Amino acid sequence: MEFNMPNKGENAPITLIRYNADECIETTIHSVEEMVVPDKESQYVYWYNIDGVSNPGQMAEIELKYDLHPLLMEDVASTDQRPKLDDYDNYLLVSIKMMRFNKDKRHKNILSEQLSIVLGTNLILSFQENKKKGDVFDANRERLRQNKAKIRKNGADYLLYSLLDTVVDHYFTIIELLGDKLEKVEQDMLSNPDPSKLRELYKFRRELIYLRKSVWPLREVISRLERDELPLISDSVTLYLRDVYDHTIHVIESVESYRDILAGIVDVYLSSVSNKMNSVMKVLTIISTIFMPLAFITGVYGMNFDHMPELHSRYGYYTVLGVCLASAVGMLLYFRKMKWL
Amino acid sequence: MEFNMPNKGENAPITLIRYNADECIETTIHSVEEMVVPDKESQYVYWYNIDGVSNPGQMAEIELKYDLHPLLMEDVASTDQRPKLDDYDNYLLVSIKMMRFNKDKRHKNILSEQLSIVLGTNLILSFQENKKKGDVFDANRERLRQNKAKIRKNGADYLLYSLLDTVVDHYFTIIELLGDKLEKVEQDMLSNPDPSKLRELYKFRRELIYLRKSVWPLREVISRLERDELPLISDSVTLYLRDVYDHTIHVIESVESYRDILAGIVDVYLSSVSNKMNSVMKVLTIISTIFMPLAFITGVYGMNFDHMPELHSRYGYYTVLGVCLASAVGMLLYFRKMKWL
Amino acid sequence: MEFNMPNKGENAPITLIRYNADECIETTIHSVEEMVVPDKESQYVYWYNIDGVSNPGQMAEIELKYDLHPLLMEDVASTDQRPKLDDYDNYLLVSIKMMRFNKDKRHKNILSEQLSIVLGTNLILSFQENKKKGDVFDANRERLRQNKAKIRKNGADYLLYSLLDTVVDHYFTIIELLGDKLEKVEQDMLSNPDPSKLRELYKFRRELIYLRKSVWPLREVISRLERDELPLISDSVTLYLRDVYDHTIHVIESVESYRDILAGIVDVYLSSVSNKMNSVMKVLTIISTIFMPLAFITGVYGMNFDHMPELHSRYGYYTVLGVCLASAVGMLLYFRKMKWL
Amino acid sequence: MEFNMPNKGENAPITLIRYNADECIETTIHSVEEMVVPDKESQYVYWYNIDGVSNPGQMAEIELKYDLHPLLMEDVASTDQRPKLDDYDNYLLVSIKMMRFNKDKRHKNILSEQLSIVLGTNLILSFQENKKKGDVFDANRERLRQNKAKIRKNGADYLLYSLLDTVVDHYFTIIELLGDKLEKVEQDMLSNPDPSKLRELYKFRRELIYLRKSVWPLREVISRLERDELPLISDSVTLYLRDVYDHTIHVIESVESYRDILAGIVDVYLSSVSNKMNSVMKVLTIISTIFMPLAFITGVYGMNFDHMPELHSRYGYYTVLGVCLASAVGMLLYFRKMKWL
Amino acid sequence: MEFNMPNKGENAPITLIRYNADECIETTIHSVEEMVVPDKESQYVYWYNIDGVSNPGQMAEIELKYDLHPLLMEDVASTDQRPKLDDYDNYLLVSIKMMRFNKDKRHKNILSEQLSIVLGTNLILSFQENKKKGDVFDANRERLRQNKAKIRKNGADYLLYSLLDTVVDHYFTIIELLGDKLEKVEQDMLSNPDPSKLRELYKFRRELIYLRKSVWPLREVISRLERDELPLISDSVTLYLRDVYDHTIHVIESVESYRDILAGIVDVYLSSVSNKMNSVMKVLTIISTIFMPLAFITGVYGMNFDHMPELHSRYGYYTVLGVCLASAVGMLLYFRKMKWL
Repeated sequence: MEFNMPNKGENAPITLIRYNADECIETTIHSVEEMVVPDKESQYVYWYNIDGVSNPGQMAEIELKYDLHPLLMEDVASTDQRPKLDDYDNYLLVSIKMMRFNKDKRHKNILSEQLSIVLGTNLILSFQENKKKGDVFDANRERLRQNKAKIRKNGADYLLYSLLDTVVDHYFTIIELLGDKLEKVEQDMLSNPDPSKLRELYKFRRELIYLRKSVWPLREVISRLERDELPLISDSVTLYLRDVYDHTIHVIESVESYRDILAGIVDVYLSSVSNKMNSVMKVLTIISTIFMPLAFITGVYGMNFDHMPELHSRYGYYTVLGVCLASAVGMLLYFRKMKWL
Repeated sequence: MEFNMPNKGENAPITLIRYNADECIETTIHSVEEMVVPDKESQYVYWYNIDGVSNPGQMAEIELKYDLHPLLMEDVASTDQRPKLDDYDNYLLVSIKMMRFNKDKRHKNILSEQLSIVLGTNLILSFQENKKKGDVFDANRERLRQNKAKIRKNGADYLLYSLLDTVVDHYFTIIELLGDKLEKVEQDMLSNPDPSKLRELYKFRRELIYLRKSVWPLREVISRLERDELPLISDSVTLYLRDVYDHTIHVIESVESYRDILAGIVDVYLSSVSNKMNSVMKVLTIISTIFMPLAFITGVYGMNFDHMPELHSRYGYYTVLGVCLASAVGMLLYFRKMKWL
Repeated sequence: MEFNMPNKGENAPITLIRYNADECIETTIHSVEEMVVPDKESQYVYWYNIDGVSNPGQMAEIELKYDLHPLLMEDVASTDQRPKLDDYDNYLLVSIKMMRFNKDKRHKNILSEQLSIVLGTNLILSFQENKKKGDVFDANRERLRQNKAKIRKNGADYLLYSLLDTVVDHYFTIIELLGDKLEKVEQDMLSNPDPSKLRELYKFRRELIYLRKSVWPLREVISRLERDELPLISDSVTLYLRDVYDHTIHVIESVESYRDILAGIVDVYLSSVSNKMNSVMKVLTIISTIFMPLAFITGVYGMNFDHMPELHSRYGYYTVLGVCLASAVGMLLYFRKMKWL
Repeated sequence: MEFNMPNKGENAPITLIRYNADECIETTIHSVEEMVVPDKESQYVYWYNIDGVSNPGQMAEIELKYDLHPLLMEDVASTDQRPKLDDYDNYLLVSIKMMRFNKDKRHKNILSEQLSIVLGTNLILSFQENKKKGDVFDANRERLRQNKAKIRKNGADYLLYSLLDTVVDHYFTIIELLGDKLEKVEQDMLSNPDPSKLRELYKFRRELIYLRKSVWPLREVISRLERDELPLISDSVTLYLRDVYDHTIHVIESVESYRDILAGIVDVYLSSVSNKMNSVMKVLTIISTIFMPLAFITGVYGMNFDHMPELHSRYGYYTVLGVCLASAVGMLLYFRKMKWL
Repeated sequence: MEFNMPNKGENAPITLIRYNADECIETTIHSVEEMVVPDKESQYVYWYNIDGVSNPGQMAEIELKYDLHPLLMEDVASTDQRPKLDDYDNYLLVSIKMMRFNKDKRHKNILSEQLSIVLGTNLILSFQENKKKGDVFDANRERLRQNKAKIRKNGADYLLYSLLDTVVDHYFTIIELLGDKLEKVEQDMLSNPDPSKLRELYKFRRELIYLRKSVWPLREVISRLERDELPLISDSVTLYLRDVYDHTIHVIESVESYRDILAGIVDVYLSSVSNKMNSVMKVLTIISTIFMPLAFITGVYGMNFDHMPELHSRYGYYTVLGVCLASAVGMLLYFRKMKWL
C-alpha cells in the first residue's frame, strides 16, 4: 500500500550486538570488512542489524562475506516480496512484513515494511527496509542487555524467535486497534446509518484484505519453522515458535471474524436504507392519497357551469368542507389500519 | 466480548480434592507450599482448582513448585488466549473457553471465561479466570463424592474428560437456547417483518460468530487429545473423549445451520420490505392515476373563457360528473386487469 | 425438527428374527432374560428389534446382558444424536437418522427418527425411537422369510447393509419428492412470481438444511464402515456398502444442486419484483408527466385577473384544448422513444 | 433432466467388433449364447455394444455368461446412476453420463444418456441406454476398421480410453456451444438489459448446474482409472488417460468460470434495473417539482376573494406568467447543478 | 479469449542457440534435418525455438527426429490447452500460457499465447504459437550472449527455469498494470459513482477470471516441477524454481485480493445508487407534501358557492396567504426534524 523509497547508493548503517550468558557488547559497524563470520565454536552470538537494502554494492559485499546464495540476496533486496521461508542448508531466510500503525499521517493507517532475517550458525543478519528512529526491536535489545535474561542463555534461534514474536505482537496491536475501530463503526452504523460512513466501511475492508494478504503467508512461514525439523532450530525453541504460531492463528481468526462482522454491518446498513426509502414513500403516498381527492372536490365546485344547483344551496360550502374533512379522516383511519402510521 | 477484570494482587483461593476408589477428601489450600506434587505411585488423584490467575507471585510459586514450562504458565495467565492444547512431555495444557448464558444482565447474552487445565501424573490443576458462586464444576465434585461413581475408579485423565464434558455441555445449553430464540425470531419475521427486529437478527449473528470462534479451536483441541496418542491419556479414556468430540461437532454443525437459517430469514425479510414498498407504490400510482385526469377535467371547466359553450348547457355539469365517474371506474377496471388490486 | 415424545417407563416391545440359510423363525420377546447372546459358532443370525429406548430399566438390562459399553448405551438412549459410527472391539454401533415423509399432518413434511444398530457376532440389535404401525423394515423381514434370498445366506453384516440400504432408500424417496416439489415451485415462480410463494421457498430451504445436516454425517458413517477394515464387516459386504455409499453421495449432490437451483429461483423472483416496481413507477411517472402540465395550463386560465386578453378571444378555449392535446401527445411520443411504453 | 423411457421386454440389439492388429470383424449378435468369453490368450479383442438395458431377462443372461457381480449388473440396469468406477477384480465397471446437444427439440438443450462400460480381459461390454441412429461411437468404429490405426495394435484398455475420449469430446462440444451462447447473452445484456432475458440466464445457470453434476464425478472416475494402478489398465494407456483427465479438468474449469461470468452478468443486469428506476424517478421528481409550485401560484389567483388587489393590476397577469417561467427555469438550473439532467 | 489464427502449411521459422560456459552460437535452422539430437556427453546445450505449431508436416518431422510421444506432439499442436506438465521419461513437456498486454488495439487488453517447452537431455525445444517481432525471450538470449552469465554455466534445466521466470514476470507486469487500473477505478467509483463505469468494472472482472484460469494451473505446473524430483531437473535448479513458484503464488494472491476489492467497489457503487434514489425520493416527497395542502387551500377559495363568508372578509386573502406560508414553514421544520434536509 505504501512503500518508503530508500535512497539508493548510500551505505546502510549496520549495528552489531554480540552476546553470551556473561556479556553483551554493542558496536557500530563501519564497513562490511569488519563483520565477523562466526563458526560453531564461536563464543558469542552475533546479531547484525542492517537498516536498508538499497545499496547494491554493500549487498554484494555481504553476499560474498557470508557466502550467501544469490537468490537469498535477491529476495532480501526486493522489498515487494511475499512472506516466505527459504532453507539454504547453512542459512535460513525468513522474509516477512512488519506492520505498524502510522501515527503521523492521517490518511493512511497501516504502514508495512519488509523485514528479512538470515539465520546462520551463531548468527542473525536482520535487514530492515529503512531506518526509523525508535526502532521496533528496541525492546529486544533491552532484554539482551539484562544480565539474567533468558535470551542471553540461548542461541541465535531463540533470538530469531524473539524477533518474530515482536513482529507478531505488532500485528496483535493492529488487530486490537482495528477491533476498537470496528466496534465504533458498528455502534455508529446501528444507531445512525449514514451513507457517508459506508466509505469508511469500505476502507476498513481494504485494510482487512491488506492485513490478510500479509498474515496468511506469515502463518505458513512460522508453521514451517516449527514443523520442518530444520537443523538450525533447536527443539527447545520449537516450543516457543509454536506459541508464536498460535498468535498468528489468533490474528487470522480475528481478521476473518472482522470480515464477517463487517458484512453483517453492511447488510444492516443496506436494509436500513431500504427502510428509510420505504418510510419516505409512505409519507408521499399518504399525502397524495389525502389531498388528491380533496383537490378534485374543490375543483368540481370551482367549475363555472351555469347550472350547478349545489352552488346556490345555503350550506353547500360547509357541506363540502365537511365532506373534505370526512374523506381525510377516513384515509387516515385506513392508513392506521394498514399500519402505515 | 466481555471480560471481568480480576483484582490483581490478591491470592486466588485454591481448593483441593484428592480421591481414589475408597475415599474422597476435600481441603482448602492456604498457600502454595501446602500443595503436593504426586508421583506415579501416588495413592490419590489430586485436583487443585485455582480460582484466579491474576496474582503473578502466586503463579510464579506454582510454576516453581510443579516445574511447569514458562510458556505454559504464560498461557494460563493471559486470559485472551485462543483455545489450544500444548504437550509439555510431563504435562498437558488444555486451554479453552467456558461459555455461559448471563442471567443477570439484560444487554449481553453470552459470558465467556478462560479455563486452563493442566494434566500431570495423578494431577489436575484447573485455573479459572475468576471465582463465581455456584461453580460450574459443582456437578463434577458431587459425582466425586459418591462412593461408587465411575469417576472415582479412574485416573486424572478421566477427570479431565469429565471437566471437558461439563464445558461442552454448557455449549450445548447455549446452542439450545439460541435454537429456541432463532425459532421465535423466525416466527416473528415470517408473520410480521419489522425493521426493528433486524437489529436483533444482527445481534444473533454476532453471537454465532463469537460462539464459532471459540468452538472451532475447541474441536481441534479435543480431536488432538483423542488422536495424538498422548502418554498421559489412557486408551479407555480416549473412547470417552471421542464422545465429547462428537458433541463438539454437533455444536459446530448447529452453529453452521443456524447461520444458514439466519441468512434465509434475512432474505425473506428483505424481500418482504421490497414487497411492501411495491404495494405502497401501487397505492400511490392508483390514486394519482385516478385523480390526476379528474383534476384536469374540473380544471378545464374552471377556466374563465368568455366562449365556452358547454358551460351554458343545461346538463353540462352532470355530464362532466358522469365522465369523471366513468374515467375513475375505467381506471379501476384497468388496475384489476393488471392485478394491482 | 419434530421428535415424538416416548412414554417413559413402559417396556419397549422386542421382536426376534433368527435365521440361517435353511430356516427363519420369528418370535416375540417378553423379557430381556429370554434374549440370547450368540457366539461365533452360533447356528443362527439373531436380529432383535427394540421399538423404543425410553425405559432406563430395560436399557440397563440389555446393557448388562450383552456386556455393552456404557457410552454405547448412552448414545442409543439419547435420541438427539448426531449420526455416528463407534467401534467397541466386540460391537459396532451405527447410529443414524431415519427420514420419512409425513403423510398425515399437513404442516410438517419430513419426520425424523433415530435408529441405532448394534452389530455383534451373529447379532443385530436395532433400536427404533418409537413403534410405528407398518414398520419401515417390513420389506427386509419379507426378504428374510423367502427361502432362497441372498440375505439368508449371509451373516449379520449383510443384514446391517440391508437395513442401511432401506434407510438410504428412504432418503432417495424424499429427494425425489423434493425434486418434484422444486420443479413445481420453479414453474410457479417463473410464470407468476408471487410474494406469498417466497415463504414456501423459505420452508423448502429449511428442509434442505435439515436433510443436509443428517445426510453429511451419514456419509461419514457409511464411508468408515466401508473403509476402516472393521473385523465385524466381511470383505464381500464391503462391496455392497460401497454401493450404499454411492447412493448417499448421490443424495448429497442432489441436496447441493437443489440449494443452487433454489438460490437461482430466489434471484429470479427478486429481480421480477424489481421489474414490477419499475413498471409501476413508469405508469405513475407517465400519468404525472402528462397531467401536471395540463393542470397548470387550465390553472392559468382559471385565474381571475381583470386583464387577461386571451379569455376574451373567440377561439381561446379551443386553442387551449388543442395545446393540451398536443402536449399530451408529445409526451406520449417522448415516452415511446424512451421505450417506456 | 430428461430420460427417454426404454421399452421394456424387447431384447436390446447387440453388435460385436472383434479385432487385432491384422483384422477387424463386425458381427450382429442375435442371442446372448453366441457371445464369447475371451481369455488372456485370446487372439482378438472383443467389443460388444448393447443398445439398451431394459430387458431384465437379457441382462440376467449376460450376467450369468460373464459371471458378473450382481451389484455390477444392477448399476448397469439402473439408468439414474451417479458416474462411478467400480473395481470387481476380474472386471472394471465404468459408468458415466454421455451428453449431447439436442438438435431436434427446441425446448431442452442437453440430452443425457447413461453409458456403462465393462472392461474385462480382452473384452469391452458397452451398455447404452437406448439406440440412436448415427451412434456417437461411429468414429471409434471407423478408426477400428483402418488397418494401421494405433487402436488396432492395442488392447481392450486402449479401446476403453478411446470410448472415454469420445465421451469427453462431447462434453467439450457442449462447453464450446455454451461458451458461444454465453458470449451472445453477455453482449445482449450489456447493450440492452431486458427483463425477459433474465429467464434465459436462469436456464443457462440450470444447464451449468446439470453439467457440473455430471462432470465432477466423471473427473473422479478418470482420475481413479489413471492413478489406482488397476491390473486391467496397462501403463502405456495410463498416459492417455491422463490426457483425458486434463480435458475433464478443462471442462470443469470452464463450467466454473462460466458460472462466475454469469454471476457478473446478473449483477450488471440488476444494477442497470436500479439505474433505470433511478432515472424514471428523476423524471417524475423533476416534473412534480416544476409544476407543483406553478399550480399553487395559479391556484392563488383563481381564488374568489373580493379584495385581491393584484387581480386589478394591469400587468398582474403578465407578472404571474413571468414568475411561473422564472420558477421553472430556476428549478431546471437547480437540477442541472444536481446533475439530474 | 483471443487467438491469432496461424497460417497453416508454411514452415515455422526455427532458430538455434547452442552454448556452454565458453561460447554461445546462434544459428537459423532451415529444415528439421539440420536439427541435432544431443546426448548426455554433448558439449553444448541446444535451444531450438520454433515460432509456430500449425504445419503438421514439420511437426511430424520433429516428432520423428526426437522420438517424441504422439500425445506430447498433440498437446504442442493444439493451442487451446490447459497449462500442464507431462513427464515422458526422456522428455518433460511444460505447456503454459504466455500473457502480454496488447498495446496496439484498444478493445482487448490481455493477449494470450500458448508456449510449449520440451526439456530433454541438454535440449530445450520451445514452441511459440506465432512469431512476434521483438520476442519475449530476447532478454534471455541477451543473457546467454554474455560471457560470464550464470545461465552459461548451467544446463538445459536452468534455461527452462530462465524461460519460465520470464513468463511469470510478464504475469507480474499485467498484475501491476491491473493494480494501477483498479486503483483508478476505485478512486472514480468512490468520488463519482457513475452507471457507465459499472461496465468497466465488469470487464475488469472478466479479465481477472481469465487471468485466474491461466495462473492456477501454472502454479500446479511449477509446483510439480519443483517437488516431483524429476531426473531432468537438477537439485540446484529446484531452488530457483521455488522462487518462480513463490512469484506465481504472489500473482494468484493478487488476483484474489483484486477480486475481493472489486466486490467491495461494486457494493459501494450499488449502495450509492440506493442513496441517490433515496435523496431523489426525498425531494419529491418534500415538494409534494408542501404544495399539495396549499393547492387544496387555494382550491377551496376558488369554489363558486354563493355563500362563502370568508370571500367577503377584507383580510381573507391575506389570511389565506399567511396560512399557506405557515403551512409551508411548518412542513419544512418537520422535515428538518426528520433529518430529511
